[in-house]
Amino acid sequence: MGSIEKSKILIVGTGGVGTMAAYALETGGKAEVTAICRSNYDAVTKNGFSIDSLEHGNGITGFKPSHILNAVPKVAEEKLEPFEYLVVTTKNVPDVSPNVLDIISPAITPGVTTVVMLQNGLNIEKPITKAFPDNVVLSGISFIGATETSHGVIRHDDNDSVKLGPFPDQAVSPERAEQAAKRFIDLYTACGKVEWAFDEDVKFTRWRKLVYNSSFNSVAAILGMDTARMRMSQIVIDDLVRPAMKEIITIAKAVGVDLPEGIDDKLIRTDPTDTAFVPSMGQDAAKGNYIEMENIIGEPVREAEKAGVPAPTLRTIYGFLRGLQLKTKEKKGLWQPKFEEGNPYA
Amino acid sequence: MGSIEKSKILIVGTGGVGTMAAYALETGGKAEVTAICRSNYDAVTKNGFSIDSLEHGNGITGFKPSHILNAVPKVAEEKLEPFEYLVVTTKNVPDVSPNVLDIISPAITPGVTTVVMLQNGLNIEKPITKAFPDNVVLSGISFIGATETSHGVIRHDDNDSVKLGPFPDQAVSPERAEQAAKRFIDLYTACGKVEWAFDEDVKFTRWRKLVYNSSFNSVAAILGMDTARMRMSQIVIDDLVRPAMKEIITIAKAVGVDLPEGIDDKLIRTDPTDTAFVPSMGQDAAKGNYIEMENIIGEPVREAEKAGVPAPTLRTIYGFLRGLQLKTKEKKGLWQPKFEEGNPYA
Repeated sequence: MGSIEKSKILIVGTGGVGTMAAYALETGGKAEVTAICRSNYDAVTKNGFSIDSLEHGNGITGFKPSHILNAVPKVAEEKLEPFEYLVVTTKNVPDVSPNVLDIISPAITPGVTTVVMLQNGLNIEKPITKAFPDNVVLSGISFIGATETSHGVIRHDDNDSVKLGPFPDQAVSPERAEQAAKRFIDLYTACGKVEWAFDEDVKFTRWRKLVYNSSFNSVAAILGMDTARMRMSQIVIDDLVRPAMKEIITIAKAVGVDLPEGIDDKLIRTDPTDTAFVPSMGQDAAKGNYIEMENIIGEPVREAEKAGVPAPTLRTIYGFLRGLQLKTKEKKGLWQPKFEEGNPYA
Repeated sequence: MGSIEKSKILIVGTGGVGTMAAYALETGGKAEVTAICRSNYDAVTKNGFSIDSLEHGNGITGFKPSHILNAVPKVAEEKLEPFEYLVVTTKNVPDVSPNVLDIISPAITPGVTTVVMLQNGLNIEKPITKAFPDNVVLSGISFIGATETSHGVIRHDDNDSVKLGPFPDQAVSPERAEQAAKRFIDLYTACGKVEWAFDEDVKFTRWRKLVYNSSFNSVAAILGMDTARMRMSQIVIDDLVRPAMKEIITIAKAVGVDLPEGIDDKLIRTDPTDTAFVPSMGQDAAKGNYIEMENIIGEPVREAEKAGVPAPTLRTIYGFLRGLQLKTKEKKGLWQPKFEEGNPYA
């Protein structure tokens, strides 16, 4: 009890990002992690995680967080001790049930649990801050390269560098939110191996990330093309990637975010040129997974509409992504193609 | 010789449309057809064409045009008798060599041979009229449903109804061009089974066809989706198909073509709803064939630019189609992804 008690942290989503978070937090010694494992539950409870990590070392085997569960615990109902932090690293697909709020709600203790969203996209915090106005919700924009290559096997090959800070416009006090963010960074960096920084301007950081994600990710998903080929083609950059980036920059400006001059050029050249890197949404599309299109394209398009700024390239891209998502829903049995009553095109 | 001499007609491209043309012309008795067969040459020289036709009857076997060649003849070089008509029914893919002009030029006798282009898209006649200013070039917009299901086997399941007329702005006299069109219709309809009509307004007919082709065909190619699903989804119509149609209608208006009110609604509902119909460009994309994107999307986009009319949906669609075409070129060995000298994105 007292000063030596560890922070209780729940991690929802143990792919690359979530597992590396569990590892950093546990090895730092200041946190007691409960990890939710779904498809990898059997593998991890049996053998633990195997990790090859740029920052923590290669050949780590048998890593098990303090607690491993296969479902999100119902804290109030099961009268469990509250979690101080809930870290969510799952894909964020609000157009498919259950959404993130549905998934994490049972583990949030109102007024207590800080929610850390290590996810991309715009306005992802809105459903959470609305449902839990007395809880801090933190934004983590991750630049980590970490992938679960098979159940429980993680390849971590790019620095675990995150900018963490409070989402703007929360009901909680800014001081409390900032304190919660800084404490989490302390717990996370206690391992001495990773660089996390406090994010002074979450809005800026998220719009900046969107410049890449709305363009390269979307085009990769629709065309099935890696970023090196896009650059070699020139066509795909000139016709699709750059126009999409320019629209994000314009929408950002309209909502008060000044992205730096030349950010499009910089991000166009950000990926390696010697390997065929496919951005995550392209990987999801290729695997037949749902894509994170609502927060990455849909929300910027809606922000553009609200601000009265044209975003024709993004709108068309959004249309194709919605079409792709519908095909995935059909494959997974969530959409049955038939003419519904009231369909104007029947 | 004289009045009983048959018209010498060369047909380049013996898929569904070309073969049904050969059949109609030969059975009409007024034409002597030379057909160019490529991949189906062995099958057709051996067994002739097998045809199940809505209009000519089922179970037609062993049909052979008067002459079958496996390459376009070099008329001048080989001192052959000129063709009165050259009918071209191949795909029109000007961004891949050899293009239509390259293919048909050796068989055109300057001042004599009338070129009949049974192909979709805008400005397809321009390279021909430029190279052969003293030849008539005719536009045929076909509504036939005819497919070569295997080498030499044709399923013709929708009426062979074509509007044929002179492309506008030719150097030849309008009277000569009109006469050439009407004579061809006479040769073609002599079989008594099909309805071909003189096209009084080729420009209108082509822009009207583009309303469907630029939208449904493109979206089918990019999304890999049939038109019934597009309509059931509503999303794909609202976000992609209708905006593309509206832009074509606007560009057409800017170049002097008034398409009828409600044409978008009419064409959105044109396809059968009880089968999953995939428009031809979608079929080509699915088969890994080149797509006819330059004349169907590229030219309307360039017309919009010239006319100063915005076409943001079509531009973005064009970008995706160019990306798809590049992937096909890579698969066929025509594009090697590497950073070329001067590539601004290297």
